[in-house]
Amino acid sequence: MPTYTPPLRDMEFVLHEALKVQDQPVEGYSELDRDFTAAILEEAGKIARDVLAPLNLSGDRQGCTLENGVVRTPEGFKAAFDTLREGGWTGLDCDPEFGGQGMPYVLATAVGEMHCAANMALMMYPGLTHGAYSAIHAHGSDEQKATYLPKMVSGEWTGTMNLTEPHCGTDLGLLRTKAEPQDDGSYKISGQKIFISAGEHDMADNIVHLVLAKIPGGPEGVKGISLFIVPKFMVNEDGSLGARNGVSCGNLEEKMGIHGNATCVMNYDEATGFLVGEAHKGLRAMFTMMNEARIGVGLQGLSQAVVAYQNAAEYARDRIQGRAITGAAAPEKAADPIIVHPDVRRMLMDQKAFLEGGRMFVLWAANLIDRSHRAGDAEAEGLVSLLTPVVKGFLTDKGYACATQAQQVYGGHGYIEEWGMSQFVRDARIAMIYEGANGVQALDLVGRKLAANGGKPAMAFFEMVKTFCKAEEGNEELKKDFLDPLKAASKDLQTAAMYFMQAGMKNPNAALAGSTDFMHLFGHVCLGFAWAQMAKASHEALAAGTSEEEFYRNKIRTGRYYMSRLLPETALNLARIQSGPEPVMDLAAEAF
Amino acid sequence: MPTYTPPLRDMEFVLHEALKVQDQPVEGYSELDRDFTAAILEEAGKIARDVLAPLNLSGDRQGCTLENGVVRTPEGFKAAFDTLREGGWTGLDCDPEFGGQGMPYVLATAVGEMHCAANMALMMYPGLTHGAYSAIHAHGSDEQKATYLPKMVSGEWTGTMNLTEPHCGTDLGLLRTKAEPQDDGSYKISGQKIFISAGEHDMADNIVHLVLAKIPGGPEGVKGISLFIVPKFMVNEDGSLGARNGVSCGNLEEKMGIHGNATCVMNYDEATGFLVGEAHKGLRAMFTMMNEARIGVGLQGLSQAVVAYQNAAEYARDRIQGRAITGAAAPEKAADPIIVHPDVRRMLMDQKAFLEGGRMFVLWAANLIDRSHRAGDAEAEGLVSLLTPVVKGFLTDKGYACATQAQQVYGGHGYIEEWGMSQFVRDARIAMIYEGANGVQALDLVGRKLAANGGKPAMAFFEMVKTFCKAEEGNEELKKDFLDPLKAASKDLQTAAMYFMQAGMKNPNAALAGSTDFMHLFGHVCLGFAWAQMAKASHEALAAGTSEEEFYRNKIRTGRYYMSRLLPETALNLARIQSGPEPVMDLAAEAF
Repeated sequence: MPTYTPPLRDMEFVLHEALKVQDQPVEGYSELDRDFTAAILEEAGKIARDVLAPLNLSGDRQGCTLENGVVRTPEGFKAAFDTLREGGWTGLDCDPEFGGQGMPYVLATAVGEMHCAANMALMMYPGLTHGAYSAIHAHGSDEQKATYLPKMVSGEWTGTMNLTEPHCGTDLGLLRTKAEPQDDGSYKISGQKIFISAGEHDMADNIVHLVLAKIPGGPEGVKGISLFIVPKFMVNEDGSLGARNGVSCGNLEEKMGIHGNATCVMNYDEATGFLVGEAHKGLRAMFTMMNEARIGVGLQGLSQAVVAYQNAAEYARDRIQGRAITGAAAPEKAADPIIVHPDVRRMLMDQKAFLEGGRMFVLWAANLIDRSHRAGDAEAEGLVSLLTPVVKGFLTDKGYACATQAQQVYGGHGYIEEWGMSQFVRDARIAMIYEGANGVQALDLVGRKLAANGGKPAMAFFEMVKTFCKAEEGNEELKKDFLDPLKAASKDLQTAAMYFMQAGMKNPNAALAGSTDFMHLFGHVCLGFAWAQMAKASHEALAAGTSEEEFYRNKIRTGRYYMSRLLPETALNLARIQSGPEPVMDLAAEAF
Repeated sequence: MPTYTPPLRDMEFVLHEALKVQDQPVEGYSELDRDFTAAILEEAGKIARDVLAPLNLSGDRQGCTLENGVVRTPEGFKAAFDTLREGGWTGLDCDPEFGGQGMPYVLATAVGEMHCAANMALMMYPGLTHGAYSAIHAHGSDEQKATYLPKMVSGEWTGTMNLTEPHCGTDLGLLRTKAEPQDDGSYKISGQKIFISAGEHDMADNIVHLVLAKIPGGPEGVKGISLFIVPKFMVNEDGSLGARNGVSCGNLEEKMGIHGNATCVMNYDEATGFLVGEAHKGLRAMFTMMNEARIGVGLQGLSQAVVAYQNAAEYARDRIQGRAITGAAAPEKAADPIIVHPDVRRMLMDQKAFLEGGRMFVLWAANLIDRSHRAGDAEAEGLVSLLTPVVKGFLTDKGYACATQAQQVYGGHGYIEEWGMSQFVRDARIAMIYEGANGVQALDLVGRKLAANGGKPAMAFFEMVKTFCKAEEGNEELKKDFLDPLKAASKDLQTAAMYFMQAGMKNPNAALAGSTDFMHLFGHVCLGFAWAQMAKASHEALAAGTSEEEFYRNKIRTGRYYMSRLLPETALNLARIQSGPEPVMDLAAEAF
């Protein structure tokens, strides 16, 4: 069975030595000294390793079941959720006014990586709850907040997000679920929603559904969508639970992965709903927490790469097969461990270099959210809005590729379910699809975010990379291995952006045909930038003298791998972008 | 439910217009006129579409079951297999002396693509049988051939290949299964084999196991391995079935995919076995048919890309969501079909350009096998030996990536099992692993095939590309879009080979650290070469006048996509190769 080891030292390195969160003038960050974060991360890591991870494989094998409208989650899931609730983990970064611990998002993100890596399917229950919490927190009335948030923060109740219908996912303007206004100010919600994660289950007393629906007579398309709270059980004035509402789970989807999470068809049959925020402005309300939700999905992609990699590395050290070409490495054994073979190492290095860079990237994005929310930093807000589709799209595409590669290290055993590597691949797969398929992320990046606010956030990003490179100009240790490749990649990114501006003006397809390549190009520059900063921090630690010399040297070696073997993909991305829209658009639809 | 459409016109194009098999002086090829191959392919296509494909999804959902030693295959599998047997499809390219139809391998490969695309799990039963047939045909005694081959050719009996044991797969030198010589010249085989595809099932009267085992007292390691026939039921002198032999299925593996195929743990308990060929030369005997077996697996990777693509294209034409950025394409509908979106097209074009090029590549490889076997063409033999790991490794890596991309086109529905796209991904995944994991293919290519025979086959390949480019030098229609990119890619390949020769001399890890990139680089050049030839054939057809103008123009357009957007990956492969072994080998094993 696969295991999970919390990467505590690596996280500490990113938070305190590369990002230096403790030095940032952000509200709440003064608490983030090394001892404090170490204590939190260690405790979170124990839960990941000892409580969540042991249920991952069994949760996949058992899956969820639906009988007479009741959904049962896999054995042990409820007890594990209780552990999360009791430890206050469900409200880690939530508002203290509603019982949350008010910790920075950057810390919650580090905790989230571990919990997700250990059991992605289980963590979706609190994950969706957090999304619903954020929406109500941002747009609900005081009464709604008082009624729902404390129980959601404590984890007693969970939440869901109901967007998709059978005929529409990306294009929500087509949705048909209706909300009929009632005399008492409530609405009767009727319609069918699909792909509703955690839509029904046996782990909480109540489920707070957030539902997008149309009030009859409102504007056409996306401008006529409103957001509603539809509780599974009505809530009495004293906070106790009342009658069952007209919402039920009609079916569970059989999916490729995340079997431990109940993916429900939800039927709303004149269910009582309460408008959140203004009528017809539901989509905007739902999208408020989109940055965090999408970063959360990027984190899922990363986390599956992390746990898959850890197990692949262990297997590669353990499994003996063949001999090193340069001479037996373990002559006392019948064969050498497969980690001696260059191609096995290549696979492991691909994963390690990606995931350590990816961790820095996602923690940086979380840090930007904190700076935006807690320090009113407008540049940070613009930047994270620009980077969000990159975090989501790049980390999930590459995370899936890494999980596949980790599975490959196992050879035939990787294909057998009991070894658990297949599950990491199958679970990682969904992250490329939901919360806006990655093609939609690329469209958001190129069609919206790149030119947003007159292109200011994009400029700020380029400026930041440039400033870093300039500041380190005389740093001979960084120059050849880190700064030069970073500059080249950043130039590729700027050239691509320029191409979009010029060619896209004449033909918008010119930009969109290269959108996914641009998202990947951007992701590579972000990870290259992350690695350059980590290399700098490592050189500084070495220069200052340290008892962990190998730790820092290995960081630099791993970073060098990224810069020399993964980052050069930017030239390919650019070549594809510059090949223009014709090859992509040339064929008639019926020629496919 | 997914469907499958036999790509008859595309196959005809490759066979008769690009490869021009009918003009080749190969025994049996004179039969291959257009009418004849069209008749065979049409009939094979009907079986694929109407008999095999409808059982694919249900076969995946039901899987195989083991009860009291009896393995049951999914509903309908036996009847479908009967159809294959009755039509003579199991012996299509087998020796007429044993009841085969003696058709060229190139035709069997085209048929194989269709049958595999329609139902990969089911086709593994005859597929393994064919492998066992080839081994006995090449190395068995006349008596063994007479006893086993006719029933294997007719499909009444099936075959298996027993190599892997729990502790060894790639490194067969470690195997422990024992063969004790008996006075009557037979052997008693004892040991456990794992991952035995089609090891036990209910579709045939007998199963002919080919088993690698060690005769006590023989040489150590791979030099002490012998090959044995171990029938499930003993065969009496009159050909009737006798006693049950001491071999049984101990367990069925739960796998990520190919659920319709029984992957067995096989226990040999003093089972009676018969030596095939010479003692201690078993590995060589087993590897004789390796080229065909590996090309067959490459074909599996391709075939899953084909069927996944077909369904994705259909879905993209059908599913409406959003509007084209250049203005509504279907204003009469609530939204446009998603095929209008550039990024959706990009995904479809990636798949289409790969699979049409891949089809030409694999049929070319099959053609080379025919030229080697049927025309004694030594250059063809050397070439196909060189190309085999590329066919296997490149087509399965890219086939899996394409299936994943086809699944992506479906959005959330791609993740739901009933839509069938998940199955294509899960089934395609195994092809990267078995029959020599793709890293082993890369090692075979770089460590063995590249320098084989003084590098003559590699030189012949480069010469062939060069000759083609030279011959077409004045062809303005090919120059910019096809010849220039092909030459650039071919130069990257030569540069990489040169780098291996120079750096690999000093440090063998220099070559092996770049082996997978080299395999991909080689694959791209092969597909680029294939596309250049298909473009040439298309331009010729257009110049000659044709009623299928759009067909040929679309070939050229699709080829252009390959050359401008996929082929440039060779520069990235080369950059990685030239980054050398240090980044790959730098870390100590315990640092992972």
